[in-house]
Amino acid sequence: MVVELISVGTEILLGNIVNTNTQYLAEKCALLGLSMYYQVTVGDNRDRLASAFETALSRSDVVILTGGLGPTEDDLTKEVCAEVMGFELVEDENTRERIAKYFKNSIYKEIPDNNWKQAMVPQGATVLDNSNGTAPGLIMEKNDKTAILLPGPPNELKPLFTEQVSPYLKKLQPQVIRSQMIKICGHGESQVEDKLIDLINTQTNPTIATYAKTGEVHLRVTAKADSEEDAKNLLKPVVKEIKKRFDTDIYTTKEEETLEMAVIRLLKKYELTVTTAESCTGGLIAGRLVNVPGASEVFREGFITYSNKAKRKYLDVSKSTLKKYGAVSEQTAKEMATGVVFATDADACVAVTGIAGPDAEGEKPVGLVYIACYMKDKVKVEEYHFKGNREKIREQTVVKALDFLRRSILSNYH
Amino acid sequence: MVVELISVGTEILLGNIVNTNTQYLAEKCALLGLSMYYQVTVGDNRDRLASAFETALSRSDVVILTGGLGPTEDDLTKEVCAEVMGFELVEDENTRERIAKYFKNSIYKEIPDNNWKQAMVPQGATVLDNSNGTAPGLIMEKNDKTAILLPGPPNELKPLFTEQVSPYLKKLQPQVIRSQMIKICGHGESQVEDKLIDLINTQTNPTIATYAKTGEVHLRVTAKADSEEDAKNLLKPVVKEIKKRFDTDIYTTKEEETLEMAVIRLLKKYELTVTTAESCTGGLIAGRLVNVPGASEVFREGFITYSNKAKRKYLDVSKSTLKKYGAVSEQTAKEMATGVVFATDADACVAVTGIAGPDAEGEKPVGLVYIACYMKDKVKVEEYHFKGNREKIREQTVVKALDFLRRSILSNYH
Repeated sequence: MVVELISVGTEILLGNIVNTNTQYLAEKCALLGLSMYYQVTVGDNRDRLASAFETALSRSDVVILTGGLGPTEDDLTKEVCAEVMGFELVEDENTRERIAKYFKNSIYKEIPDNNWKQAMVPQGATVLDNSNGTAPGLIMEKNDKTAILLPGPPNELKPLFTEQVSPYLKKLQPQVIRSQMIKICGHGESQVEDKLIDLINTQTNPTIATYAKTGEVHLRVTAKADSEEDAKNLLKPVVKEIKKRFDTDIYTTKEEETLEMAVIRLLKKYELTVTTAESCTGGLIAGRLVNVPGASEVFREGFITYSNKAKRKYLDVSKSTLKKYGAVSEQTAKEMATGVVFATDADACVAVTGIAGPDAEGEKPVGLVYIACYMKDKVKVEEYHFKGNREKIREQTVVKALDFLRRSILSNYH
Repeated sequence: MVVELISVGTEILLGNIVNTNTQYLAEKCALLGLSMYYQVTVGDNRDRLASAFETALSRSDVVILTGGLGPTEDDLTKEVCAEVMGFELVEDENTRERIAKYFKNSIYKEIPDNNWKQAMVPQGATVLDNSNGTAPGLIMEKNDKTAILLPGPPNELKPLFTEQVSPYLKKLQPQVIRSQMIKICGHGESQVEDKLIDLINTQTNPTIATYAKTGEVHLRVTAKADSEEDAKNLLKPVVKEIKKRFDTDIYTTKEEETLEMAVIRLLKKYELTVTTAESCTGGLIAGRLVNVPGASEVFREGFITYSNKAKRKYLDVSKSTLKKYGAVSEQTAKEMATGVVFATDADACVAVTGIAGPDAEGEKPVGLVYIACYMKDKVKVEEYHFKGNREKIREQTVVKALDFLRRSILSNYH
């Protein structure tokens, strides 16, 4: 079963927006075990859209089109696809009511005339109710070819896809696809691949895909089989082997869990509170922790001590340490960590000091970062040399700091 | 002059990565005044790549291909394009030397055999030296059609494009294109469009494009003309009119200046120091400020006071205020702002307290945020009701807080 994606929108051709819908749909289709050979973007232009759609129908089984379902004159996707496939447009009672209801709950006093256009659907098409907007999704089938039309806004497209399109596509693909996510910290992508080279080279089913993220590598192991149980049995030994090889460098095997979520989960598990003392990251570590709902149970406060004076005043870093070793040093990182734990009475802390650039500080190069972690009356420091621009260095520091904290909890409490 | 983009890479078809190169190139081409009707993605497959390339050559003047120039067997772009256009591959002495030099400076002990493949170029092609990788960029011209091949990694593609491809494309497009960026805070996209509706409806040259960002709207005014001077003269009255309508809601007219850069610029100009007291944003405001090189001149420290206890301890928020009005209240925001200024002796501060969700707190809804700004012995508070998930609410809060600080500086010191 071959799927093709067509994104419709002049704003994509002009580079006004990044086409994240395509990545979202491509990943979901791959997860469903569907093949994809082409992704195409065209503007809001009748002839070129028709031509792209005809080409797609000729070479793919399912064509998913996104965008161009809005109420304006420019929005042509439904009209063009219905014409190419030979469907007539008729009014859908249910969609008309949904639009009326949608506007009733909105700030608009009356329904703009052109919105009624969205109640017109190709006769015989499956209408997918959109709970986040007025344009319904549509599925049109003819001569063994399927066209699926979805609205462009991601907050409308994603729920429509997950709730209604994905189950539909699953039926088209008789095999069961099951995949397992494994998220790893502390290794680069090529290191991870090296450690798995024998598995990767001989892989057929399940397959192992690697995804490089800042400071992390995600692995997705995917099996195809005739039944749920067969797929699970195919996955099991491979996942077990990968777990053995990476052990505690794996921070989660849950698809939706982020590194900060894993850290907060461990802190809660061992009933620990944490605090932060940040220099070059300027609050980003705390910012990541607070991104997790319920972080307040384990995180109460944090300090951004960007100046030497602030390091002395709030964290009690000694003047002589700053003078002798400098603000970016193992010693200062240690004193920051110790100081913040004493100031706040937290069980654990991470402290960071480094040079994010663009300029080096004396003999110390851009990218030099010290991360200290305090736990159970012990403070440990790690020295890093990161590459990249200011933003990249800070991002990598945040990931390493969160992972240092995670590893420290595991080695102290696990 | 019509340009078409072809992205080559199975990782894009699988949704492993977001195709940011396409957005980058599309925006740059639009800025050069070039038309674009199609963007296509194909995998690392000889036949499908050849077919996509042939189609592109038949309907566009210039085809830019990205990816598939690596050293492995999978990398086919150069080979396929040369074959389709009828070019022979020959070794390029200069590229061979560049590759040798590149590896000499790397961690590799010897040059992998397959890397020499990258020294082969289509005979007669223009070779674009890549200073960030081994694969050169290539320009092939035949029968009034041009193919431009660029490596996929953005840190290789972008400098190659800016330094070598952009000047080449400029020559193909005889008209001069000039554009002016205008960045606005405090209005939604539709509000901005409403205020400019007369200009937008009658626009032909220059054109006004709007780009919605979190909490910001960017406008790009673009003029086409036969000379630099004519283009400037076309831009001038429109830019002047937009400036008049949005006045101080415009935080910059510089392409590269971010909101935090504008804030730091103003703080430096008026020799002010700033501090932060953050609850629901958990350090993200400070994190944005510290993102600006040289922020240390104006920002020395910040507090993340997530718990009530921390608000009391570090910011001296009174127990009775917290009890009577709650942590998320105008009164608490005010006391946080006053408290942090007294604790740090900074000239200005922003303080934030709000409910990022997912759960409401009693009668206070998710998205309720108070931002206080202290300046010249006065503290002002703004109340916001943001929509979206936890992350979205926090992002919007950060932007509003930075902009509140910016507006306060302007009204107090300008």
